[in-house]
Amino acid sequence: MTKYVYLFKEGRADMKNLLGGKGANLAEMTNIGLPVPQGFTVTTEACTRYYQDGKMIAPEIVEQILAALEATQSTSGKQFGSSENPFLVSVRSGARASMPGMMDTILNLGLTDKAVEGLAKLTNNPRFAYDSYRRFIQMFADVVMDISKSNFEAILESQKHKKGVELDTDLDADDLILITKAYKAKYKELKGEEFPQDPKVQLIEAISAVFRSWDNPRANTYRMLNQIPYSWGTAVNVQSMVFGNMGNDSGTGVAFSRNPATGENVLFGEYLFNAQGEDVVAGIRTPKPISDLKKDNEGLYKQFEDIAKKLENHYHDMQDMEFTIEKGKLYMLQTRNGKRTAQAALKIAIDLVKEGLLTEKEALMKVEPAQLDQLLHPQFDQKTLLHATPLTTGLPASPGAATGRVVFTAERAAQLFKADGKPVILVRQETSPEDIEGMVVAKGILTSRGGMTSHAAVVARGMGTCCVAGADKVKVNETDKYFEIEGKRFKEGDYISLDGSTGKVYGEQIKTVDATVSGDFATLMAWADKHRVLKVRTNADTPKDAEVAYNFGAEGIGLCRTEHMFFAADRIRAMREMIVSNNAVERKRALDKLLPMQREDFIGLYKAMKGYAVTIRYLDPPLHEFLPHTYQEIRVLAEEMGIEFDELRQTIDSLHEVNPMLGHRGVRLAVTYPEIAQMQTRAVIEAAITVNKEGGNVTPEIMIPLIADIKEFNYVKKVVVETAEKVQKEHNHKLDYLVGTMIEIPRACLTADTIAKEAEFFSFGTNDLTQMTFGFSRDDAAKFLGDYYKTKVFEADPFAHIDETGVGSLMKMAVEKGQSVRKDIKLGICGEHGGDPQSVEFCHNIGLTYVSCSPFRVPLAKLAAAQANIKNPRK
Amino acid sequence: MTKYVYLFKEGRADMKNLLGGKGANLAEMTNIGLPVPQGFTVTTEACTRYYQDGKMIAPEIVEQILAALEATQSTSGKQFGSSENPFLVSVRSGARASMPGMMDTILNLGLTDKAVEGLAKLTNNPRFAYDSYRRFIQMFADVVMDISKSNFEAILESQKHKKGVELDTDLDADDLILITKAYKAKYKELKGEEFPQDPKVQLIEAISAVFRSWDNPRANTYRMLNQIPYSWGTAVNVQSMVFGNMGNDSGTGVAFSRNPATGENVLFGEYLFNAQGEDVVAGIRTPKPISDLKKDNEGLYKQFEDIAKKLENHYHDMQDMEFTIEKGKLYMLQTRNGKRTAQAALKIAIDLVKEGLLTEKEALMKVEPAQLDQLLHPQFDQKTLLHATPLTTGLPASPGAATGRVVFTAERAAQLFKADGKPVILVRQETSPEDIEGMVVAKGILTSRGGMTSHAAVVARGMGTCCVAGADKVKVNETDKYFEIEGKRFKEGDYISLDGSTGKVYGEQIKTVDATVSGDFATLMAWADKHRVLKVRTNADTPKDAEVAYNFGAEGIGLCRTEHMFFAADRIRAMREMIVSNNAVERKRALDKLLPMQREDFIGLYKAMKGYAVTIRYLDPPLHEFLPHTYQEIRVLAEEMGIEFDELRQTIDSLHEVNPMLGHRGVRLAVTYPEIAQMQTRAVIEAAITVNKEGGNVTPEIMIPLIADIKEFNYVKKVVVETAEKVQKEHNHKLDYLVGTMIEIPRACLTADTIAKEAEFFSFGTNDLTQMTFGFSRDDAAKFLGDYYKTKVFEADPFAHIDETGVGSLMKMAVEKGQSVRKDIKLGICGEHGGDPQSVEFCHNIGLTYVSCSPFRVPLAKLAAAQANIKNPRK
Repeated sequence: MTKYVYLFKEGRADMKNLLGGKGANLAEMTNIGLPVPQGFTVTTEACTRYYQDGKMIAPEIVEQILAALEATQSTSGKQFGSSENPFLVSVRSGARASMPGMMDTILNLGLTDKAVEGLAKLTNNPRFAYDSYRRFIQMFADVVMDISKSNFEAILESQKHKKGVELDTDLDADDLILITKAYKAKYKELKGEEFPQDPKVQLIEAISAVFRSWDNPRANTYRMLNQIPYSWGTAVNVQSMVFGNMGNDSGTGVAFSRNPATGENVLFGEYLFNAQGEDVVAGIRTPKPISDLKKDNEGLYKQFEDIAKKLENHYHDMQDMEFTIEKGKLYMLQTRNGKRTAQAALKIAIDLVKEGLLTEKEALMKVEPAQLDQLLHPQFDQKTLLHATPLTTGLPASPGAATGRVVFTAERAAQLFKADGKPVILVRQETSPEDIEGMVVAKGILTSRGGMTSHAAVVARGMGTCCVAGADKVKVNETDKYFEIEGKRFKEGDYISLDGSTGKVYGEQIKTVDATVSGDFATLMAWADKHRVLKVRTNADTPKDAEVAYNFGAEGIGLCRTEHMFFAADRIRAMREMIVSNNAVERKRALDKLLPMQREDFIGLYKAMKGYAVTIRYLDPPLHEFLPHTYQEIRVLAEEMGIEFDELRQTIDSLHEVNPMLGHRGVRLAVTYPEIAQMQTRAVIEAAITVNKEGGNVTPEIMIPLIADIKEFNYVKKVVVETAEKVQKEHNHKLDYLVGTMIEIPRACLTADTIAKEAEFFSFGTNDLTQMTFGFSRDDAAKFLGDYYKTKVFEADPFAHIDETGVGSLMKMAVEKGQSVRKDIKLGICGEHGGDPQSVEFCHNIGLTYVSCSPFRVPLAKLAAAQANIKNPRK
Repeated sequence: MTKYVYLFKEGRADMKNLLGGKGANLAEMTNIGLPVPQGFTVTTEACTRYYQDGKMIAPEIVEQILAALEATQSTSGKQFGSSENPFLVSVRSGARASMPGMMDTILNLGLTDKAVEGLAKLTNNPRFAYDSYRRFIQMFADVVMDISKSNFEAILESQKHKKGVELDTDLDADDLILITKAYKAKYKELKGEEFPQDPKVQLIEAISAVFRSWDNPRANTYRMLNQIPYSWGTAVNVQSMVFGNMGNDSGTGVAFSRNPATGENVLFGEYLFNAQGEDVVAGIRTPKPISDLKKDNEGLYKQFEDIAKKLENHYHDMQDMEFTIEKGKLYMLQTRNGKRTAQAALKIAIDLVKEGLLTEKEALMKVEPAQLDQLLHPQFDQKTLLHATPLTTGLPASPGAATGRVVFTAERAAQLFKADGKPVILVRQETSPEDIEGMVVAKGILTSRGGMTSHAAVVARGMGTCCVAGADKVKVNETDKYFEIEGKRFKEGDYISLDGSTGKVYGEQIKTVDATVSGDFATLMAWADKHRVLKVRTNADTPKDAEVAYNFGAEGIGLCRTEHMFFAADRIRAMREMIVSNNAVERKRALDKLLPMQREDFIGLYKAMKGYAVTIRYLDPPLHEFLPHTYQEIRVLAEEMGIEFDELRQTIDSLHEVNPMLGHRGVRLAVTYPEIAQMQTRAVIEAAITVNKEGGNVTPEIMIPLIADIKEFNYVKKVVVETAEKVQKEHNHKLDYLVGTMIEIPRACLTADTIAKEAEFFSFGTNDLTQMTFGFSRDDAAKFLGDYYKTKVFEADPFAHIDETGVGSLMKMAVEKGQSVRKDIKLGICGEHGGDPQSVEFCHNIGLTYVSCSPFRVPLAKLAAAQANIKNPRK
């Protein structure tokens, strides 16, 4: 028979999957001899079973619960429902991963008409006993029976009114006895049955209610945001109640073993005498700092300090603890590894190494890669933030905080910023490549449409600019230059603030503090470098981006998107001339104008990377992306170019595609217009020769996108090689260079062995590969993904992490096939996933050479790469 | 050392890959003792080598050629360049597959100023000798040296003019001597060198020229149309010349061993005395029927008849032969299996079985599946066709011939046809589902855009209607109701004719003859049924289509596209109401209107299939396909539905997708609107219960499209099963049914084992699977595929046959994974490839249960399935 219930003394810290985090740690504390009020844990498997059985607790599980209850009672010497020495318990959720406040808790369970008498006698405090009973009835009714609290609050208010008092505390025991009666009557009125007087019935109902709360909307949303699988379920902890509110020799508190904001090695926390946990949280009384406990009760402080140290030494990590003091006796109610700021995480990890509690590798595992973002981007000033309420929440598309004046066009952003240098925030339905100049000056970008891999998101991450994308409550009227959120209107010049790490949008100015990188950061990065094998490159399209990335430790450029260079105002004209050319001669003339600019770009990139490899992807997007689409814009362009409006419009129409994502782009452009590949090759090679003649050491890597068949690759490679050889001869300078390919189409993975015969490197383009493997257009998926989450068909955005089952199996196949014909083939990834820690780990595991990510993600990727290698060392 | 040259006596019929068809058969005829002018074959490998070596014949190959030449000369007793007994040869191409007229041929090679004297002496006919020399110079200059014939024709004309004669034959030997001199002078003038007087130089140059002609545009186009790989190369046959023009005891002819039009077992062909091959072809003199030879020279006729019989017995097939008689001696110049009409193919195959020359299996292999189309569709009357010239050629999208009056809208097609019953042809840029009623009445459909799997092509094939698609020279002006081809304008009511088997478009009325299916057809189909294991189902959306398919022997419906049922005028209204509904209640109200119609459809389909399985695919296309897009149409619809124009327009706008192919469609619709799946399930089940209560035996197969993950399938399966159980209870009737899925997304193949745990059958949707595996949108690929063919990156349309390397490997993976968890899983294919013989063979080989194709392709698929099983019998 499956064991569904564990006494605390039967569990261990490593049984988190079964007992939940809280349950496992209660068990561990019990076993190392700390003072823990005893109890038991109903497992996560019981939760799963609860749902399988149609939301009921199976009789065999009820039996095990009652047996554990019996065992716990007999240890305590108390008795459920006793009018002498009543046994009371708390019933709390506890999942594998912490989900603070998302599920339900019930305290004081076991109180009945009889037990309340016992409690009153035992504590010699009838007021306390009836107040507890009243609170329990209200909590049980609310959590278990779904009766709104307001029903009971009305009774309380009316009693206070009757007595003419203001505060709950002004009510005496008799008042509370009356109130308790009224509560029970109300309960009966609404439920049609008496408030249950059998504590075992209360218990089973309460456990069911906690299981149910796993599926409440709040919990579902939290899980989706934190990628916690629905299938895990929650455990339920049933623990003997201890009371911090039994007088001034009692109390309760929460504390961290070190300062979670700075990492400083001192106890940090708060406590209150004569109080229960909810009083600390509720904010009615102001708790005292934990350091005061030393003065108040040095013995207790010492005992708690020892326990904190003991737990730190046991868990090798900073602890977040809850405790209660009942009549002078200290009880530990919970411990867990404490959440901390990025700054604290670094300091604590490094201090623990210094203290000999952690090895370097263990310390590396203690820092969440995603947290590093906090260190690299401005954040809101926490004190100012306390008083701000977000208007809406979009997607946290690019981290950091920003405050500034609203503008609705890229031009206006540039104008305003140039005029006074004060910050602006660009607000648009969605951005397009033409907005680039406005995006550069903006402190933050807010869009109402588009996902985590939309244009705004990708570009903002690349530049390290804060961005909130896809905030669909934001209704933008670009024509009349205003936007509305839930009826509130903002016009140009109004201040708003964005938090790109949480997606929150505020309708006011909030102070920001700049990023600060300490010496700890450098230490941690040095350790990461020592313990990783996966290289980290960057996606950079401009020398400026490349420099930022180099300073963050990027080991090369894994993706330079040449098309981004063509959107600048002085270039798009030549690009458009190229596109509307009627023949190869005209096209070549336009390309000749682009050549010197492209060459300068590459020289800049090569110099910024100081000898590291630079991978240049050839023109990729469909050409219509470069052309205007409105009547007005087309008219202006036609005039500029001296061609007929109708002719230009026809050209633009003829470039329209039904499914541009699967259309005329990538290598397909180079097959139809080899002149483009020739021009780009000339620029790549001439730039490298220029830099190498000045003492540089550049080996450019030329990358052909969107290959589905080796013949496409061969066709373009031939063009590239012929041009490269010609240019070298012209300059009388020999140069090494590689020609490789993106692997971003399923067929490329399936035929990777054939492709690797000719391609000198692979770089996985997991954005497109994900789209084609799933048959999802990321531009359109938002329309139905909402329903997918609601129905739990999907639990996370398939574009956020590499889908290891589908996309990952294609990648593995490509790696194996590629290596089977070219043993030392360079293998990289340049999709957005290159900056996602979970995906970086996968890339390490399947044996890639490097990941490439946006400049600000480089440190994060390095840490993730080190962690991956520590978990699964590469031979 | 590789052997690049084979004497005829060294080869065999089974060496076709190396020697080409012509070379292999010349060798075979030599070896079975038939009178063949001797010679040798330069192999296809030499051709490949020629291109590898930068278009030159390697010295070692030249050496082998000269050695073979020596051997052949010594057998003949003649000598190259001899003024007594000159050795002359023909140089002809000969690829693995016949490519008639696509490559170059040179006759009389070996003639020089000296050899021409020898020929004159030997034949005692100087006129003949100089005429031969003149022709050779012109041919060599044209084929080898790329000098236009017109240069020489001018000289000939001027000489005739000078002599005052009309015909070449009026010129005498002296004239021809003069002309020959003038030809040589012209040659020198244009080439800057003398006409080569060394026959060996002539030979090597001529062989090079034939190799080169493998790559001429004509040959490239032919290969693409016939899927002959460029990599094969051509062989070159060098054969001693024999002369049919050496007097009245000489002659030449071509003949088939049976009638290639009817299959009748009598010699069929033509000959001419005192003529060379080109005279027969040129049409200057009228050749006599081969039966006349019996009267002219019974001995020779008898000898030829014997040879024909011998060859038929040897090859077990009808032969197409060329022969020459030189001074009373019969020489065989070529034999090959003869091309024949579909009707003849059937008769010959069946007769050969009766004659004991073939087994049933061998006979099945002799009929080309694609040919069966000729029997099932109307064809042009061949005599009328002779005088017609096609204006342009589009894609042969749906076979058959049609003639009728041009109309430009579906409505007009229906109107005109109803008014007088005379045929109409619908001409459009492209068709859309709303055109369906016009397509039903049209005899033929012509579109200027779209490929082999465009809407027009798919629907036309389904209905057996002739269709030419993507004829891009056809400029359609739908507004002003006319179209132009190369400047020629056609307006409504003008007659045109289409050949959907060749893609040809004619600007006139051409008589058509109806399809005729003989008893031979039934015999062959019965044999095919006996020898195949792969089942053949049909894609049918209406009871009428289903009936047609049933009569062609379809064994079930593999794909019923329910959306096609919603486009009829009386239904689209309810469909649109459903789409613009604001909530589930409104949506359900609209769906309730669709339910009875849908149920009637299914009853009709079940009845038509008389107990065979019927697979019903749930709603698949994006909803915007059902909505109008022009201002006018939206206005009308808004009025009809009683909603605001702006509201409706916004709804339509909000449904717009960037990449609809990868958007909100397929199972994704059922996840967001489970009401639709509920309605469809109710219709499927109620219809089946109705039919079964009347004594039917229906087991419906419900097919969920576009699955990428098992959870999508499970979500919808649950909706289906709950509804199905409910309906059965309501009707108190138990029903078997299956729930399965399309496999059309790469991820579905990659996770097919997980999916097969829940899905009871798989049906490959290879249209979409091809699009996603290649990353090609079939709607957009036309824009660049032209360049892909030109550059030989692709040699065939990837949508025409299953891409075995890429798409096929995903299919194999899905089959293996599917069978690993559900051993007897039903495996089908319902993409367009189900009607392509090559793809049917692949489906057989990977172990599918059935293919499903449009009704008119059913016989073809059955034959292909039998051939596949004969080649590779399934255990």
